[in-house]
Order: sequence, then structure tokens, then C-alpha cells
Amino acid sequence: MIIRRLVPAVLVFSLLVIAPSPARLAADEGMFPMSEILKLNLRAKGLEIAPEEIFSPDRASLFFAIVSLGATGSFVSPDGLILTNHHVAFGGVQAASTPEKDYLTNGFLAKTRAEEIRAPGMTARVTESFKDVSAEVLSAVTPGLSLAERTKAIEKKMKEIVAAAEKANPGKRAEVSEMFIGKSYVLFLYTSLKDIRLVFIPPLAIGNFGGEVDNWMWPRHTGDYSFLRAYAAPDGSPADFSPKNVPFKPKRFLHVQPAGVKEGDFMFLLGYPGRTYRHYPASYLAYEEDFRMPYVADWYGRQIEIMEKAGAGNPAAELKLSARIKGLANTMKNYRGKLKGMKKIGIVAAKKAEETGLLKFIAADPKRKAAYGDILEGIEKIYAEMLLRADSELVLDYLRTNPVMAGLGWTVYEAAIERSKPDLERESAYMERSWPQTKERLLLSQKNFVEAADKAILKELLLRALALTGINRITGLDALFKGKASEADVDAFISRAYKTTRLADPKALTEMLGKSTAELRAAGDPFIALAEAIAPATLELRERQKTRKGALDSFFARLSDVREAYLAKSFIPDANSTLRLTYGRIKGYQPVDGVRFEPFTTLAGVLDKTTGVEPFITPEKVFDLHKAKDFGRFAHPGLEDVPVCMLYDADTTGGNSGSPVLNARGELVGVNFDRTYDATINDYAWNEDYSRSIAVDIRYVLWLAEKYAGAGFLLAEMGVK
Amino acid sequence: MIIRRLVPAVLVFSLLVIAPSPARLAADEGMFPMSEILKLNLRAKGLEIAPEEIFSPDRASLFFAIVSLGATGSFVSPDGLILTNHHVAFGGVQAASTPEKDYLTNGFLAKTRAEEIRAPGMTARVTESFKDVSAEVLSAVTPGLSLAERTKAIEKKMKEIVAAAEKANPGKRAEVSEMFIGKSYVLFLYTSLKDIRLVFIPPLAIGNFGGEVDNWMWPRHTGDYSFLRAYAAPDGSPADFSPKNVPFKPKRFLHVQPAGVKEGDFMFLLGYPGRTYRHYPASYLAYEEDFRMPYVADWYGRQIEIMEKAGAGNPAAELKLSARIKGLANTMKNYRGKLKGMKKIGIVAAKKAEETGLLKFIAADPKRKAAYGDILEGIEKIYAEMLLRADSELVLDYLRTNPVMAGLGWTVYEAAIERSKPDLERESAYMERSWPQTKERLLLSQKNFVEAADKAILKELLLRALALTGINRITGLDALFKGKASEADVDAFISRAYKTTRLADPKALTEMLGKSTAELRAAGDPFIALAEAIAPATLELRERQKTRKGALDSFFARLSDVREAYLAKSFIPDANSTLRLTYGRIKGYQPVDGVRFEPFTTLAGVLDKTTGVEPFITPEKVFDLHKAKDFGRFAHPGLEDVPVCMLYDADTTGGNSGSPVLNARGELVGVNFDRTYDATINDYAWNEDYSRSIAVDIRYVLWLAEKYAGAGFLLAEMGVK
Repeated sequence: MIIRRLVPAVLVFSLLVIAPSPARLAADEGMFPMSEILKLNLRAKGLEIAPEEIFSPDRASLFFAIVSLGATGSFVSPDGLILTNHHVAFGGVQAASTPEKDYLTNGFLAKTRAEEIRAPGMTARVTESFKDVSAEVLSAVTPGLSLAERTKAIEKKMKEIVAAAEKANPGKRAEVSEMFIGKSYVLFLYTSLKDIRLVFIPPLAIGNFGGEVDNWMWPRHTGDYSFLRAYAAPDGSPADFSPKNVPFKPKRFLHVQPAGVKEGDFMFLLGYPGRTYRHYPASYLAYEEDFRMPYVADWYGRQIEIMEKAGAGNPAAELKLSARIKGLANTMKNYRGKLKGMKKIGIVAAKKAEETGLLKFIAADPKRKAAYGDILEGIEKIYAEMLLRADSELVLDYLRTNPVMAGLGWTVYEAAIERSKPDLERESAYMERSWPQTKERLLLSQKNFVEAADKAILKELLLRALALTGINRITGLDALFKGKASEADVDAFISRAYKTTRLADPKALTEMLGKSTAELRAAGDPFIALAEAIAPATLELRERQKTRKGALDSFFARLSDVREAYLAKSFIPDANSTLRLTYGRIKGYQPVDGVRFEPFTTLAGVLDKTTGVEPFITPEKVFDLHKAKDFGRFAHPGLEDVPVCMLYDADTTGGNSGSPVLNARGELVGVNFDRTYDATINDYAWNEDYSRSIAVDIRYVLWLAEKYAGAGFLLAEMGVK
Repeated sequence: MIIRRLVPAVLVFSLLVIAPSPARLAADEGMFPMSEILKLNLRAKGLEIAPEEIFSPDRASLFFAIVSLGATGSFVSPDGLILTNHHVAFGGVQAASTPEKDYLTNGFLAKTRAEEIRAPGMTARVTESFKDVSAEVLSAVTPGLSLAERTKAIEKKMKEIVAAAEKANPGKRAEVSEMFIGKSYVLFLYTSLKDIRLVFIPPLAIGNFGGEVDNWMWPRHTGDYSFLRAYAAPDGSPADFSPKNVPFKPKRFLHVQPAGVKEGDFMFLLGYPGRTYRHYPASYLAYEEDFRMPYVADWYGRQIEIMEKAGAGNPAAELKLSARIKGLANTMKNYRGKLKGMKKIGIVAAKKAEETGLLKFIAADPKRKAAYGDILEGIEKIYAEMLLRADSELVLDYLRTNPVMAGLGWTVYEAAIERSKPDLERESAYMERSWPQTKERLLLSQKNFVEAADKAILKELLLRALALTGINRITGLDALFKGKASEADVDAFISRAYKTTRLADPKALTEMLGKSTAELRAAGDPFIALAEAIAPATLELRERQKTRKGALDSFFARLSDVREAYLAKSFIPDANSTLRLTYGRIKGYQPVDGVRFEPFTTLAGVLDKTTGVEPFITPEKVFDLHKAKDFGRFAHPGLEDVPVCMLYDADTTGGNSGSPVLNARGELVGVNFDRTYDATINDYAWNEDYSRSIAVDIRYVLWLAEKYAGAGFLLAEMGVK
């Protein structure tokens, strides 16, 4: 059998990159699950410790130091001190702030443990163990099930496995993660720490230096880091916030290396990358490129406009909206970068070319044809159908989530339905094990309610929803608007809704969370009425999604098999928010012909970028320290300045924010926080020539802590001399 | 005597530049007159030929191959073939084009000498010899002269020297150039070739690739070159265009080296840099930074808007306006770059700091105090007075030059006055030796008249002029507008003026150029009336300028003396459009922290930048050739692609456009055409860390000629194998 190797799509782009990369012993594409690490031959790549030091289930290896905070963080002291990104802690800092005590703008430093304050809404999870449960999960699939039933059966089986695991491991969180779609499943056990406190947060001017202007960009000069601390009950077990709690003692913490790294050095990082789509077919990529991403980027841009208008001249509203604006802007710019990258490398055409080859490969063998001949056409049909309904599906999603009040109304309404079911049959957010967190998140989102922004967002969504026709028509809304749907009617509804709703009141909200649908209906809240109006379409959509997933599961599982045969390589699963390792080298790249991005930026560059106007403000003290060349032991040899950010070619995505960047000896030398604009396309295609991630250099972290903030005691706690 | 060395101003900026430059044996600041070359020890810097090969009055050295075309070009064949920039030939190509035969857009290639066509308005001058005439010029300054009389006496003496030199050297042009202001003067003799023809002009898409977007920028991908040919009378003497003329045989032509250069190589260039201001005081720089450059940049921007509007949807108008728009945009962006650079390095403050030191140095010695104590204060007063009158002085200049019709009116009117004087007393444009060229320029400018643009520009200038008050009031305009000056009056004047003027008619214009002021007045042309209205203020301004120059001449001459003593170095004169040499190395630089500009761009970069939308269009054939890797012998080793543009740290300014870039053996390896944005400030301060000029690589020139245009015969003519 002749195996043809395809020219990867990304070579189209790499034509531009003429100069040979300095370090050819560089990264491989891949966010490797812990189970794969020992196969990687990392010693040959540059690792100077035993790979078992990174992962070995039976010793206190490095992976025990990695925490999931939504994104990633790591323990850096025996007393539960966590180093992560400023933007990962952002929501917690915002929630702890008021216009009077604005820790977001001014930063925060606890001089003693007693001064460490709660970061509301934050939890930290540590991966404790995992095991493959594919056979058990797939045993739920029995002949004769419809596609939706197939999906439900798998979901139910996963819940059962989770319930059993949590019963068998008191105090732990269990989760079954789908690795290869429809094909492999892994049960993870986590320790979930719920008392997280602020320790040292740099001022926004440092932690978010460059703001949205520099986000996803190089050269970068952001001090995007924060120190938190995990607390536990006095017996060491996870516990809700309590003044009696004590610092958590992790099984392992990372050694911080104040000498940093230099260009060409081997590095690796550990973290919880969210989602990649490297194994997805052309029809999916086309749907993303042609419809979903442009739609979302535009809508997020519109929401940002609305929120910025609502926050103008109103510091309290501005603070409430800050985290959402940051999140929307981040995604919007990421999508725009991806769209640029997709067009540039012609990724859909390249995938299609691969698939043409794959189809020939399948057609060449009757047995292969019988086993795999239906896949690509089948997938294509599903995405074609999604595209037909995409307008209403996206609007429905946003109607349930973007306006805070609509989100509260929907959750209250859905809770009444779901919580009347047996626990294992509920949507997961309403299961007992998740219900406290769901409620907490709800109350936090209520806290960030800003009426002017909310009304404008709801209005725009309702107008979009009411304008839909054909199969996209959301008929439930007709009842709510009594068949009429003029802009004036929408205005009238919104005006009345925000006047009469009780959902903005925390006490009322808490009460309503215990009510039945009948009781809620009787109370007559307009946002409950809205939830009810969109419920039929939403439930239909969920059913449709389960049908699609049932079909895609089978297609993707078989697609993976035949692609592995065709490309003659074994795949690693796409990122799915489970713990992964990726490695590479500290190195720059050539973003365009004639320009090289160097792997380090410096403090001098921060000062040079400083205009005194947001987001380029730098505290005077930083200027003074730089002028005095008071770099301590944190200067980079050769640069004779404090290094601020650095580039490397490891394979990362969203969720890797806050991941520790580790040197060849497994010591922490940086905190990953971003990718370059050229690398936003990583989620679809990684390439050594342009895929670069960005960390804040540990030397900048430590220099700021010691010289700028006077937090030398933190360095002492970390054992940094 | 203790000599203090000051920290140069530019060190403030170079703080950013951390990495040591690869080639330390690099450039020195300086555009060296030919007389200085033998003192430079160029062999030690990297030159591999005898410096006498570059300049030696008594042998056919390289300088005889350099021509002035306004900017610069060089002979590259024994048959008068000239290589220069596309943008230097632009005006000539435009003048040779019509909407039907649009050589500007489509390019031009003469397959035989017979097909070479005239480039109207272009002349090429070759420096033949020079001698210092300072003593003779300054002998005109006798005691008791007023400041204005002093200036006039010097001007008159210079004209006398020129007249005598031209009489003694029939067929040559003479010119006395002021080297150090008020201090030294050199008489140059030139051969001036007036029959210049188009040979090979790349299409605009190549010759102006990147247009105004990329102008003054790196990375750069512009094929900014053109081939012209100088013709002479059959006896070899300069002659006006005639079909009987034959190719000019230069004393020396440059050898073109198709192998090009590589990073770190020594290079030098020869050319006619226009103006630098390195020896000017802080008060001058402040006047430029605070008033003149922002005013001019804004006004040029406004004119471009007006012209683009007038050209929209009208290809004939667009073509007529193209050269002016290009010139305005070029200066506007240059000024904006300079302003950015001046602020960034704080040049005024740095100069002031130097002057504070200089004042102390002067005050420290009573003899020095007596000789130099008045200088800086005296200069400051002059610029303060200029600033007070700057509004009207700039508007007056623009009223005489920016609207084509006003320009024609003014020249016709002034010609009547000036040409009634004895030849040596006339303004130089009206002297017999310049009169044919003045007339030709006038007719060319008339050809580019576009009424809609002209009206809008005149209206804006008249409104600005009429709004001036106090000492800036241009009282002559009151008579023209009978004391009234509403917008409606201006509109009415303009409407009538463009309806009734005869200046738009070439025949009428030629006739009017022979008339007296009385005859002109009698003819009643509104633009003659406008010229008469602004004449008193203009003549006053000229007198004021001569007074200022008289004062500045004395101040600057003495300032130069005392600064040389204070800084313990000998200066070279600022650029003044005379032949200069500058040298350096092929090398990139760091424009901002974390980014390095590499010294070469490539053809792949051209293709990557190509969007298909102006100014980023590339002919399909270039794509095909690149795809086929048909690079011939023109690929750059290591890049494995045709190099397109390159960077080096030689010291250049406007006027160096088209200068040959020469390797250590004096062979042509590129054609200089621009500086980087960071280097626009060169005119005030050169710095090794960021002053970079840009050439089109000879390999791109030759590759395009041979592979793209099928002009291999030109390579043969140049002896390129």
C-alpha cells in the first residue's frame, strides 16, 4: 500500500519564511495528554530531567503543581501560592473591587496572610488521576438507537461514571472528557479548591499594559501576572471560603528560576488548553470561516460599543462591565486574526485538497469504501444544515446569555424544569454537584448588571430574532409580542420588563431559584415570560444538536481512523480543557518578509511605548527604577535590561493562559498569557514558522514584585534568592 | 583648554537599541564633498579600490558617472544609459503619457534606440570640476552695507563668478554653492544634458509598488527604478532634443554587479543630497517643529484631498495631478516622520543643552565672548521674528505657487519686471541662462492644470490670506477685493477669474511672457491682477529674507567656528544639492523593542503583500516566474529568492534618490530610493542605530528587466553576463 504524504496546508504560508530557524531541534505540533509524555523522547529534544519528573501517577511529579482556574495557574510555594495571569484573575479581582477600593485599577498587595482577600467566583482544580473509560462509555451505544438517543445514552453513561467515581473518591470532582470525538473518553479526578484569595495583583497599567491594542500582538510589554493563594479547611480538604481555612498544601509546587532563559533554550509548558480543531474537516472550517466567526466577531464588536457607551462617565458601570468587555474584545480580535490567517493560508482549500486525496484513498479499496465511504459527504450535510439554521441558532444562544436579565430569567426557568428531574437526567449545570457553583455564577452575573447596556443588547437581539423567517423563525416570540413585532413594540416590552422584573434583586432571585414553573409563571416576571417564549425553539435546538452529535460522533470516530491510515501517522486528541504538555524553544520568527520578531522585549521597551494615555501608562516609579538601572539580579545577559515578555514555538491555545513556562530542568521561567496574531490560527493549524506564544518573563514578575511593589517576602516564600 | 564632549542627542533614542550592531566598522555621519574623500581613510573602512578611483579630478573616476536629475542617476553604459529611480523619472514619464498611451500605468520599453522617446522637462547634469571661491565671494562684503545689501552683494558676486566661468567654459553650466552658510562657497562646473529619453520604465504596479502606504517604510518591496538615456549633438556636446542627436558618451560609466551584496558588506553611494540642517541651532529646529512642518504637512494633506476629489472618475485629470499628489504626499509623510522623530529624541531640548554648554564655553573666555557672545541670542531673535510673520509668509509662497493659474500669473508678471533689468540683476529664474528652462517648466505646469482642483486650492488660500490680521495682513488683497472679503466674494472672484483668464491657453501664455507690466495690466487678466495684488507683500518679504540672510550668514559662519572649537571636531558642510559621497554597511536595525528589520526583502514578500488592490498589485507574470523559481543568476544566497530591497546605514537625504549603491569595488549593486520612517529625521540628526536608507537591489532590477520585461538587450548593453 502506497501512503502519500500530503504537503501540509501551512506550507503555503511558510514560503515567506526564508531564513532557516536558528533552533531546528524545535517543537512538534501537539498538546500532549499526560498519558503520551513518556512516549515523546523529551530528553532527546532538550529536557534535562527524567520525563517521569513531569508526569508519573505514583510520585509527586510536576503535574500536581498545575491548577485549572478556567485557564491555568501553578503552585509556586508549599503554602498554596498560585502564579497565574492578571487576566485570568481579572474576574476575581473585579468581583473583589468597588469604585472606592478599585483593586483592578490600583492593584492589590496583601502584606500579611491576614490581608489576603477572597476572589469571588474563582476555583482552582488540580488533576489527581485519570483513566481511559472509552469502552465503558461506548457500551451505552446499543443497536436501534436514534442519533439523538445515541448522544443521550453516552451523556447518561458519562454521568453515571462520574457519579460512581465521586462516590468512590469522597471530596474529589470527577469528569469524563471526550478525547477523540465519538471514539475515546477519559475519566479525570480533580481536587477542587473553592477558597481562592488575592495576594498580589499588579496595577492594571502593568497587568494589562497595552490593553486591547497590544492583545494578540508582538512586540508585547504586558506584566500579565497575578499571585493568588488557595485555602483549604484546617484538615487540608477543599472547603468553601471561611476565615478558619488555612493555606492549601499542594503535593508539589514549582521551583521558580530567577535566572530565566535565553534564546534557543528548550522549554515546555503544562496547562489546560481549551479547544482546538485540527482534526475537523473542511466543511466545518468553511462554516466557521464563512459564517460563524464573522457573525460572532461583528456581534461582539457591537456589544462592546454598547457597553462602552453605557460605561462612559460612570465608573461603577464601567467597573461592572470591564471583565465582559475584555472577554468580548479578546474573542473578537482572536476571531479576526483567525479569519485573516485562514484566508492567508487558504486553509479550507488545503483541507479540501487533503480530503480529495483521502476520498481517492478510500475509493481505492472496496473494504475501505464500505467502511468509510459515507463519512465526508455525511459530515458535509450536517454542516450544510447547520448553516441553514445558523441565524436562529446563534440568536437563540445570545438571547439566553448576553442580556444579564434574560440570562437570569432563562436560568431560573430552566432550573425549575431541570431540578424537577432525577439528578442524573438533568442538564449538568443543574445537577446537585454543580448547583452551588451555578448559583454563585448567577449572583455574580447579577452583580454586574448595568441596565442601559442590558436594554440595548436585548433590543438588538430581539429585533434580530423577530426579523428571522422560514425555518429560522422563532415562533415562540410571536405569542410574547402578540403577533406584532415593530421596533416600538420591542421598546415597549423592554421598558416594561426592566421596570417590573424582580430578577435584579438578589433576594428575589434566590427565592425564585426554588420555584416550580407554575409558580414562576404565576409571578408574571417578563423575563420568565421571555424564557418561556424561547423555550420551545431552544429545546428543539438541543434535540437537533444531540442528533447532530450522534451523527458526527460516528463520522468523526471513523474519520480519525481512516485519516491515520491515510496520513500514516498517529494523532493526538484535540485540546479539550484537560491537562496537556507542549514543548518547544525560546525563539522569534519572521511575521512578514523583511521583519523579524525577536524573542525578548525589555523594560526599556515598556517605557518607550508609554504615552501616558490608556492603555500605555506606566507608574513613575518604574521609570525611576529603570533610570537608576536598578535591575537587581533580573537583567538578561546581553540585553542588560529586565526582560519583559518572550516568544516560543510551543503549541498553545486559550486555556493555556497562566500556564507555567518551564525550562529544561522543569523550573518556572515565565507565565504564558497569549499568542501572536499570526498564531491565532493555531486552533486549526500549528506551524513552526509562525506559531508563537507569549509569556511574561519570570524576571519581570520578580523584579516588579521586589523592586516596584516591595513584595520581597513573596520571593522569600518561593525560595527565590 | 579642556574640551568637553557632549552626549549626542540621539543617545536618548538609542537606549532602546540593546543588541550590539553586527558590523561595528560601520558608517560615520556625513555626506562628504568630493574634496574630503581622500581624507576619509576609506580603505580602512572597507573600500577595496583606491579612493582616487572614486574621485580624482585628473582621471575618469567614478564621480563622472553620477548625474543630477533634480535627484540622482548614474551612467551604466558607454552609450549614456542612465539608471535612476522610477519616482525620479516620474514627471518625465507622466509628461510623455496620455490617457491613451499611459506609460505611467503600463510602463514603457523601447526595444530599439529609435523607439526611445523624449522625457519632457528632464535634464541630466554631470559635475565636471569645482573650486573654492569663498574669498572671492566674501570680498563682496564691504563695511557699511546693510544686512540686505550684504546679501545682495554676495548674490551679485556669485552671479558674476558664474557668468565669468560660463564664458570661460563654453557649453558648461556653472554654479556657486554655499557650503558652510555665510562662510564658504564653491564654484561647480557641470555638463548639462537636455535631451533625455525613456528607455525602460517598469509599470506603476512595480515601480511604485506599495505607493504612499509603503513610502518611507520598511519592509519595502518597490521596484523603484527606471532606465533613461542621455542624448547629445552628434559632436557630443549638450543639445536640446533633436532627432539628429546621438547617445551621449560619458567619461565614465558604472559597472553593474549582478551578484549584489550581502549583510555586513561595505557600501558607499554618490549623489546629490538636497538639504540637511545638522549645524542649525535649537531656535531653528523649534520653528520647524512647532510651526512650519505641522503647517505644511496639514496644508499638503488638504491639497491632496482636493486633488484626489478632482481626479476621481476622471482619468485624464488623475494623470495630470499624479506627479503633484505624489510629491505632496511624499513631503507630508516625511514631515510627519520627522516630527515624530524630533519629539521622540527630544532634539530641540538636546540642541538647547548643547547650546547651554556652548554659551558657558564662550563666556569662559573674554576674547571668545567678544567674538561669539552675540550669536545664539541674535539667531533666536531672527527666528522669533519669522515665527511672528510665518502665517503670511507661508500663505504668500503658496498663493504664488500652488494654484497653477496663480503660478502662471505670477511668473508672467514677475518676468515682465525682472526681464526689464540687466541680466545679472534679475532673479535667477529670469536670467538668460535659465529662461528657456523656466519657460519649459511653465508650459509643463500649464499642461497639468485641472480647473476643479485649482479653484478649490486657490479658494482655500485666498480665505486664509484674507483672514490674516496685524503684521500678517496682506493689504494688497484689499484693493483686489475692494475692501470686502466674504466667502461669496472669493467665490465670485474665482468664478470670474477662471472664466476669463487666457493663461490656460499655451499660445496666449507664450505671448504674455514677452509683455511689459503695463501691457499686461491693460490686458486685464484676473491672475495678473492677483499677482499685482500680492506683489508688494512678496517683494517686502524678499527684502526681509535678504535682511535675515545677511544677519544669519554672519551668525552661522561664526557659530560654525566656535562650535568646532567647543566640540573639538571639524564639520563637513550640510547637504546643498552638490555631489557627495556617503558610506556604510548593508545592515538592518531595531525600529522598536522586540522587532528587527532585516536588511533584505524578497520577491516572495512582494507576492505576499499583493492584495490586487492599489497600490499592492503585481502582474500575473511575476507570480508565474516566482512559482517556477525562475530566478536566473539573481537569487540571493541563503534567501534562495530574488532580493527586492535592502537597508544600509549610509547618510542620505532627499536628492539621493536614484543614487547608485556601490560595493567595496565600486560596482553598482543597488539604486537608493528612500529612507525608513525612523530615518526621516536624518536631516537633523543621523544615528547609526536607526538611520537606514533603502535601495532597490540590482538583482531585482536586472531580474525584472531580463525575465519579466524581456529586456535582456539592456543587460547586454551594461555588460551584465
